[in-house]
Amino acid sequence: MKLSRYHLPTLKEAPAEAEVISHKLMIRAGMIRKLASGIYSLLPLGVKVVRKVENIIREEMNRAHAMEVFLPSIQPAELWKESGRWDFYGKELLRITDRHGREFCYGPTHEEVITDIVRRDVRSYRDLPLNLYQIQTKFRDEIRPRFGVMRGREFSMKDAYSFDADDESANRSYIDMKKAYNAIFTRMGLNFRAVEADTGQIGGSFSHEFMVLANSGEDTIAHCDKCDYAANVERVELLPPKEISDGTPLPVEKVETPGKKAVEDVAEFLKLPASQFIKTLIFKTDTEQEFVAVLTRGDHEVNEIKLSRTIGANEIALASDEDVEKITNAPTGFAGPIGLPIPIVADNAVAGIKNGVTGANKKDTHIKNVNMARDFKNATLADIRNAIEGDACPRCDGGKLTMRKGIEVGHIFKLGTKYSESMNATFLNKEGKSRPMIMGCYGIGVGRSAAAAIEQNNDENGIVWPPAIAPFEVIVISLGKACDEVEKAADGIYKALQDSGLDTAFDDRNERPGMKFNDADLIGYPVQVIIGKRGLAEGVVEIKTRKTGEKKNVPMENTIVAVTGILEELIKAKKP
Amino acid sequence: MKLSRYHLPTLKEAPAEAEVISHKLMIRAGMIRKLASGIYSLLPLGVKVVRKVENIIREEMNRAHAMEVFLPSIQPAELWKESGRWDFYGKELLRITDRHGREFCYGPTHEEVITDIVRRDVRSYRDLPLNLYQIQTKFRDEIRPRFGVMRGREFSMKDAYSFDADDESANRSYIDMKKAYNAIFTRMGLNFRAVEADTGQIGGSFSHEFMVLANSGEDTIAHCDKCDYAANVERVELLPPKEISDGTPLPVEKVETPGKKAVEDVAEFLKLPASQFIKTLIFKTDTEQEFVAVLTRGDHEVNEIKLSRTIGANEIALASDEDVEKITNAPTGFAGPIGLPIPIVADNAVAGIKNGVTGANKKDTHIKNVNMARDFKNATLADIRNAIEGDACPRCDGGKLTMRKGIEVGHIFKLGTKYSESMNATFLNKEGKSRPMIMGCYGIGVGRSAAAAIEQNNDENGIVWPPAIAPFEVIVISLGKACDEVEKAADGIYKALQDSGLDTAFDDRNERPGMKFNDADLIGYPVQVIIGKRGLAEGVVEIKTRKTGEKKNVPMENTIVAVTGILEELIKAKKP
Repeated sequence: MKLSRYHLPTLKEAPAEAEVISHKLMIRAGMIRKLASGIYSLLPLGVKVVRKVENIIREEMNRAHAMEVFLPSIQPAELWKESGRWDFYGKELLRITDRHGREFCYGPTHEEVITDIVRRDVRSYRDLPLNLYQIQTKFRDEIRPRFGVMRGREFSMKDAYSFDADDESANRSYIDMKKAYNAIFTRMGLNFRAVEADTGQIGGSFSHEFMVLANSGEDTIAHCDKCDYAANVERVELLPPKEISDGTPLPVEKVETPGKKAVEDVAEFLKLPASQFIKTLIFKTDTEQEFVAVLTRGDHEVNEIKLSRTIGANEIALASDEDVEKITNAPTGFAGPIGLPIPIVADNAVAGIKNGVTGANKKDTHIKNVNMARDFKNATLADIRNAIEGDACPRCDGGKLTMRKGIEVGHIFKLGTKYSESMNATFLNKEGKSRPMIMGCYGIGVGRSAAAAIEQNNDENGIVWPPAIAPFEVIVISLGKACDEVEKAADGIYKALQDSGLDTAFDDRNERPGMKFNDADLIGYPVQVIIGKRGLAEGVVEIKTRKTGEKKNVPMENTIVAVTGILEELIKAKKP
Repeated sequence: MKLSRYHLPTLKEAPAEAEVISHKLMIRAGMIRKLASGIYSLLPLGVKVVRKVENIIREEMNRAHAMEVFLPSIQPAELWKESGRWDFYGKELLRITDRHGREFCYGPTHEEVITDIVRRDVRSYRDLPLNLYQIQTKFRDEIRPRFGVMRGREFSMKDAYSFDADDESANRSYIDMKKAYNAIFTRMGLNFRAVEADTGQIGGSFSHEFMVLANSGEDTIAHCDKCDYAANVERVELLPPKEISDGTPLPVEKVETPGKKAVEDVAEFLKLPASQFIKTLIFKTDTEQEFVAVLTRGDHEVNEIKLSRTIGANEIALASDEDVEKITNAPTGFAGPIGLPIPIVADNAVAGIKNGVTGANKKDTHIKNVNMARDFKNATLADIRNAIEGDACPRCDGGKLTMRKGIEVGHIFKLGTKYSESMNATFLNKEGKSRPMIMGCYGIGVGRSAAAAIEQNNDENGIVWPPAIAPFEVIVISLGKACDEVEKAADGIYKALQDSGLDTAFDDRNERPGMKFNDADLIGYPVQVIIGKRGLAEGVVEIKTRKTGEKKNVPMENTIVAVTGILEELIKAKKP
């Protein structure tokens, strides 16, 4: 592609609202433009990257025997009422009324539509297993869209749905998809982890998230320093502490802590580490017990998903200051487990705190030397907190968890029969009996994968694309002027690279060399081939590897071999 | 692709609501399924065809230096208000309100969005010309969607937009697109015509429609039997009749025509040809003259687009019976030009009628021997009718128009500055002066092209795909059973065909031969390779050409050569 004829509007500055690096760079490199909040247009360079991502996805999905379909974006409300999600989905579902007053939505996902298709055409176990996928635009009316295409409202997703006759086969389908996802993100050249994830409402099933490791990631991944275990920090199964404190407890002692409410403040005031504190939070729930007191170590945080599951609640929220005062007889910030009139759930780690500090249920007062075994035996122990650095691995002996930031780019679920039962997607088994199909669903964010690749691969000058999803693998930069010898030589090399099968750009624009170098670094072509007057006289080109910045002169006739070699090295270096 | 693992639910019957053959066959062949009125899912076979259509479009658009973008489906109302189309577009525009109460629409087209993108990044004549295209889903809330994907509400379209600095360059862009469209539909293997079209509201511009010829087409194309001229029947520029009747008119004579209103009825009653009649219709308009009488020959039909343009109206409609009675003093059906108190517009052909018949403005009465030159000189002559078979060609001498039915699959417009002026998309020209860009827009219906191909290529057994857009080029049909010798041989031939680069299906399903033959004919693979027990013993396969039904035995080792040869013949035969 000759850049003189290519629509590639690069910018020196990103708009102020661009918070994360991928958003800034995608705008600056002329890949995307904002149309409205959370809604972006892809410019030619953006389309090129997205097509490469899509092609990798397609090839690996096809290899895994999934078949491509294309389902409508506008879906009738009836189907969503059948699955029960019309009321459940809330404001993220973009609801639409057509000219005849009929209700529709812009599909945020396609479980209902695919289940409807399969239930109409599949009737026998002989038609199963079946895995159908599409690459289609979704809309989720996020309340606060941000980070460009990373958390947009309109976005492209690959979604696949598997249908199986029995659990064993469903598990095979799940494993096939897990393998395909590993292949997809590996081919993209990304450093990623498949981590165990919680499926929330869906019981009896399992799920993995595919996380691209990047310091700017919104999610935290805990992974073991000794074994393969990795999980979203919110979803780590934590073991109880090995030794429960039962040493000699000191006598409890009230201390004045005027105005000190937060653990950090009290800890500083009393000159004790946060891990010595027993934090007490009052939650309001939708269970029979309206309120529950929740204890964690001062340096730990409550995990609301785990807590909900422990107490069997669908909804929980921190109690209001008013409610807290009613229950504890003290303002918020001074609650403690001793003498509380409501049920208490303590995180496993609380049992390990010896002579801890907690609130006294009295304004400006805490209690020292509190020990669970002696002072609040009525508490129920459970795993209700997020993991932190150094926690023991739940899968191996002696492993410690370390934390990495990550960006979720894929998610696979074993759905079970949630949709096939509510929507009556059944088949006749070998014995002629009607059974609900067992489903799985498998998503990849297409634009999000490209953005995550940038978050993981960039430097102060711009993007550093992995070759497989770079908009072009190599750029030829001519330092000549229109129709001069240098330009002609550059054009020859461009054509030779193209003909050799390399996806090549040619910066033949009438711009200063500095501008061309800056744009090339910003856009992040993996390899740059630079041709100037002196080089031409000596019969050499300069080849720069974007990732390392390394430059070398190469005889002109060796250009293809040299570029191919660098690309192969870059791809090899990424392999795990 | 092995059909035993492919989701290909063929049906014996199409649903009753499927009116046209392409709709019926796409459902029966397992290509599409209806989700809601005018909204269809593509099953795997449908996706395969659509991808081939898209690839041809992409290759030819790229060759013509258009660049692919991808624009959002959800568009903010502000842009449509800027262009003035928010109010103009009516109920076909699917209007949407997001969670914050902001107005959007599901894009039925993307002029506003692309103009917004270009005006933000393009500032100089040096950045022009520019042609950006996408393949994207549109939504038009048709009041009565029908014909499956041919006139659906949600549909896929390739839309391109060109931006030029001056008129000459804009015309070049238009011609480039016309060439690209010719290449696209030729490569698809379609029999089509590029016909002149009217652009309606857009003055001073031009446009062509690309019509696939098919008897079931909704549009009628007039084309010359002598020269290249072709136009939508509604848009043919008709010449005035060569000799205006001025012979000896007979004296006018009133005749009783009790209860005869329609031209056909009066003609039969009076035993005169319809071409001898002067039909008089009263139209209500939004011009200063509220009503106008419109005359055509009895066998001609008023063309409302031409009529509107002639009288300078934006809206016209037939007057109500009440209004007709008030104006003519007679019930509808007996109006005539003589003595009418409103302006009269007569089609050019009316001037050629000698001693014609028309209404008498009196119930159950007509007048014979009416002649314009004598009896209603006050009428204005103009071209206000549709062409009919045998009309003179407006472009050559002696050519006659013949009529063909066609399906519009593409449309190209020179837009001029309609959007660039209303939306302020300007650039600085060489002299540093700000000028509006000159635009063109160019659409192709993707699913519609596939459906039109079926309308043009089918027989009583099913679809007869042109090879370039067939879901598979060839199918291998095994008449054996799982794992027997025949099946193994068929599998070998399947693999050999695949390896040779042919897109091959393999019917390895455990079904009766009759079912396999019927499905193969229904789905319309261009070539079938059939392997049975006897053939295997003799070392031959049977090769059937779907289009001709011709069958021949070929030595097994010659299969690839034979199949390739047939495909080449099929493609060659289509070339104009």
